[in-house]
Amino acid sequence: MNILSFFGKRDESASVAKNRLQILLAHERADDGSDALLISSLREDILAVVAKRVNIDPDSVRLEMDRTGDVTTLGIDIELPAARAS
Amino acid sequence: MNILSFFGKRDESASVAKNRLQILLAHERADDGSDALLISSLREDILAVVAKRVNIDPDSVRLEMDRTGDVTTLGIDIELPAARAS
Repeated sequence: MNILSFFGKRDESASVAKNRLQILLAHERADDGSDALLISSLREDILAVVAKRVNIDPDSVRLEMDRTGDVTTLGIDIELPAARAS
Repeated sequence: MNILSFFGKRDESASVAKNRLQILLAHERADDGSDALLISSLREDILAVVAKRVNIDPDSVRLEMDRTGDVTTLGIDIELPAARAS
């Protein structure tokens, strides 16, 4: 889905600098649950709610997932156009 | 809203240990936008989507917001019952 087209084109020429939104999720589990699945599901949900509030260029979203011991972390790095919704 | 009652009571006696979910949002702005408002809005949205997937005890959610220079950060620390939805 092209978020930019949904919110409509904005005049970005006046501000070529990009904002960035970084989201880090860390799940520390005390049981043997499948936290990778939880994190993966939350990633989709969170990207969706972020996309409702800001213009996201899908090509500028970087994801990094790591699992160490009992902790699963997910990093989401989103480059935002300066124009934003709401 | 009591999420626990929404998802129904689960047998938590077998697992008293708590999982934790930590979410860190960082917004680095290149313009003079009101990122505090954005972060605040995202906080509500993200808590809502997390609550859809896991049992959240509202009393166990800790929030910490910080603003330093061009970066606004929000920390969300959620203690999760071992039982989880989906």
